[in-house]
Amino acid sequence: MHPLFEIVGSVAACITTFAWLPQIMKILRERQARDISLVTTAALASGVFLWIVYGIAIGSLPVIMANTVSFLLIATIVGLKLRYG
Amino acid sequence: MHPLFEIVGSVAACITTFAWLPQIMKILRERQARDISLVTTAALASGVFLWIVYGIAIGSLPVIMANTVSFLLIATIVGLKLRYG
Repeated sequence: MHPLFEIVGSVAACITTFAWLPQIMKILRERQARDISLVTTAALASGVFLWIVYGIAIGSLPVIMANTVSFLLIATIVGLKLRYG
Repeated sequence: MHPLFEIVGSVAACITTFAWLPQIMKILRERQARDISLVTTAALASGVFLWIVYGIAIGSLPVIMANTVSFLLIATIVGLKLRYG
């Protein structure tokens, strides 16, 4: 595989992980999360948690790390939704 | 690896892919997407698109398929955000 594609995969992982930050900042700024689906965010948190379990099972540090950060960010959104929903 | 973990990975992929459906249904039902971050959804769509490119590069059909469905669902939310934002 061309090394360029390793970079593409890494950039993809970074983007889909840290993309959650603007959503957190928006809720904190506006103190409003009514339009956000609790089912979607809770399901994403559960799914990402299972990705961490899978990452541990296959011994993949990138899968574990990216999904652990995602889990913390998405769990934060679930908490903000419950507070400002 | 225990075959149970293949199931965990598959369930994780299904959950993080189809978790977007309730968010789409909620926006369509309430015709309101003001609290959803456009930056987050557009970044997620871009990141997931790069995951598809990576999946093609490494020849992984599960990565390609899961991310293609995710891309379509997240792109739909971007469109709904632009309409009902």
